[in-house]
Amino acid sequence: MKQNMKSRDSQQQLLLKSCRDTRIASRQLASMDSEAKNNLLFLMADILRSNSEAILIANQKDLQNGTNSGLSDAMIDRLLLNEDRIEQMCHALHQVASQDDPIGEIAHSVLRPNGIRVAKMRIPLGVIMMIYEARPNVAVEAAALCLKAGNGIILRGGSDAIHSNLAIGGCWKQALTQAGFPQASVYIIENTDRSVMDSLLQFDEDIDLVIPRGGEGLIRYVVDNSRIPVIQHYKGVCHLYVDKDADLQMAVRLLIDGKVSRPGVCNALESLLVHKDIAAEFLPLAFKALEEEQVEMLGCEKSRKIINSLKLATESDFAKEFLDLIISVKIMDTFSDAISHIESYGSHHTEVVVTNNIFTADEFVKAIDASVVMVNASSRFSDGGELGLGAEIGISTSRLHAYGPMGINALTTEKFVVRGQGQIRK
Amino acid sequence: MKQNMKSRDSQQQLLLKSCRDTRIASRQLASMDSEAKNNLLFLMADILRSNSEAILIANQKDLQNGTNSGLSDAMIDRLLLNEDRIEQMCHALHQVASQDDPIGEIAHSVLRPNGIRVAKMRIPLGVIMMIYEARPNVAVEAAALCLKAGNGIILRGGSDAIHSNLAIGGCWKQALTQAGFPQASVYIIENTDRSVMDSLLQFDEDIDLVIPRGGEGLIRYVVDNSRIPVIQHYKGVCHLYVDKDADLQMAVRLLIDGKVSRPGVCNALESLLVHKDIAAEFLPLAFKALEEEQVEMLGCEKSRKIINSLKLATESDFAKEFLDLIISVKIMDTFSDAISHIESYGSHHTEVVVTNNIFTADEFVKAIDASVVMVNASSRFSDGGELGLGAEIGISTSRLHAYGPMGINALTTEKFVVRGQGQIRK
Repeated sequence: MKQNMKSRDSQQQLLLKSCRDTRIASRQLASMDSEAKNNLLFLMADILRSNSEAILIANQKDLQNGTNSGLSDAMIDRLLLNEDRIEQMCHALHQVASQDDPIGEIAHSVLRPNGIRVAKMRIPLGVIMMIYEARPNVAVEAAALCLKAGNGIILRGGSDAIHSNLAIGGCWKQALTQAGFPQASVYIIENTDRSVMDSLLQFDEDIDLVIPRGGEGLIRYVVDNSRIPVIQHYKGVCHLYVDKDADLQMAVRLLIDGKVSRPGVCNALESLLVHKDIAAEFLPLAFKALEEEQVEMLGCEKSRKIINSLKLATESDFAKEFLDLIISVKIMDTFSDAISHIESYGSHHTEVVVTNNIFTADEFVKAIDASVVMVNASSRFSDGGELGLGAEIGISTSRLHAYGPMGINALTTEKFVVRGQGQIRK
Repeated sequence: MKQNMKSRDSQQQLLLKSCRDTRIASRQLASMDSEAKNNLLFLMADILRSNSEAILIANQKDLQNGTNSGLSDAMIDRLLLNEDRIEQMCHALHQVASQDDPIGEIAHSVLRPNGIRVAKMRIPLGVIMMIYEARPNVAVEAAALCLKAGNGIILRGGSDAIHSNLAIGGCWKQALTQAGFPQASVYIIENTDRSVMDSLLQFDEDIDLVIPRGGEGLIRYVVDNSRIPVIQHYKGVCHLYVDKDADLQMAVRLLIDGKVSRPGVCNALESLLVHKDIAAEFLPLAFKALEEEQVEMLGCEKSRKIINSLKLATESDFAKEFLDLIISVKIMDTFSDAISHIESYGSHHTEVVVTNNIFTADEFVKAIDASVVMVNASSRFSDGGELGLGAEIGISTSRLHAYGPMGINALTTEKFVVRGQGQIRK
């Protein structure tokens, strides 16, 4: 027992030391110029390519273990690497390298009445820990974005992908050395025991932000157990509200794109709200279009009076993220009912109104509390790339620090810089 | 026992219900225009003035209890209200009213290649909880700033100031009613038991941010026990580094202002670092000036060779926030030693370099990891008002969301607004 405690303590000490090394490395990273950082990313792409065989062999082990332990097909697909997917990772590295580097940017520079100049300078956040499940590409793409923003990075992948992650980690080590960066800039956690993750989540002195990527269970676990700030994103229950003044053909188009183009992602539509005045005309159009795409509709009582064959939606269906070809439908008596419904059942992710009425549009934008509010556009645009942020590190549905899709700027912060000529306050 | 559990459960339910009411109120607050919010603040000032007698009677009770329970003079002074201090609170209300309202601001509006327009709109954070100790003015000033930014506010003051807080809370209730705001916009916690605070700190669905103001003990307690994000600010160990290329007269002026003008605040200087090349010339000047102001110097071995009468500083003195007329002094062999020393002993609050050398200045600004980095200016300017932010809600020494003095903008966030003409992603 005492022996166990001792070995746990020394494991803790080792972890802490490694995190501190990453913190120290992050100070060097903070003053690296863009050219050096881009060079690192280009090198990493070259090294991934020339090590692709070794990476695929490591990945085969993970796939074999996954098959033996009965992972679902979807999980196996997430885990899978092949030449194509390695090429995609290299492409992502080049894309991140081509993005503007926000570090060092000076903004809001003002001269105060006493002659001191006050400005804000963009700096890296510091050290970021990614906690993820089966996708090995996170070890390349998320790391690249964090490094480009000058942050140290700790990668804690799931046990399912451990061999792939270690192979990719080896490539980072090579790239860091060749590019003249400290080795500790990228710290790959080799021990995937939950107790190790629990320890890491206590190191709020050395880690500035945790970004969990994976299922709701993982994210809730991280939030519940972390002393370090966590970017949260549980789920996306996105609504399309078709107003009485909507262009109904446009509404059908947005409905189909939002529900069908990729039903398994968080910016897909899960619920359709329809103003009562146009319900009799719109619902049959919507039903026909959805039926053609094999989408099942679960409707409220009122909507079933218009389309009798609809299955009745239960109360809980309205809060559900189906991630599948299913959509809930509800008729709204008024515009404010729609606002209240979204308030109650939405997830602060993405909400869409279809309307030709300028006042309804403005009121919707003002009243809806979601990270992305859209007027006459598909919910599927709620994505870093589509919104013009470049590569995306994740989506935040809590309001602090970042709200909505997070690009490179969300991995930075600002410090005040004051320059004077000897001014005192007295 | 079971009875106890039951009553604790029902207390929890009541608390949660009240927080939810504040959340609901915050949605109304979010769409109040500046005129209405300013009107509320003006009304509050009027009501404070006309209720000053009742407030002072309540405050007398707190002071009496404080004296009986042996509160320190400093604590009693923080607790004390009088006509003057009430007038100061009214003045603060008018000042906040006169500040620009950031809510609704649209920034970074870009037209994407597919014709959708993407912009970011500034919105309130939501619901903010202030946890504070003896100063009753927080219930006026912090609340005013949060309300101006459109946030609901929960005020949890210490038991020492409970009567004063409740009296001020009564004024808020009057002002909110008269101005047509929901009562729940300001929620004053009447029960100051720690268990109640512990419960509140779990309500991460209904409270978006906690700002603790008080001693390090309180702040650590809140950080350790909160599921809600906390703005942290433990202490300010601020350094003045006098470079070999410094204007020594300027350095003395900045040293005295930084150490003496208000030694009890967090932006006061606690440590003086002196480059070895100018130490023999500068230290006697510094010593003389500090001695005239009754400041005690604790020096390193090397500095004692220049000024023999210095007391020897212990290792821990260099990490200490004295909040008193004491300063630690250390001679630095090189500029990078100064950077490393600040990295090891600083608190990411405010750091100052005195130098005429442009490269040294730029390198200091780049290398120092602190929320405020200054060149040739007094550390005492590290304050929301002095930096031009208007009223200050606190200082953050952690990097997420806000870093450094926090003005009204730190009480807001941004959502994405997308406007299209029916675009889909396919």
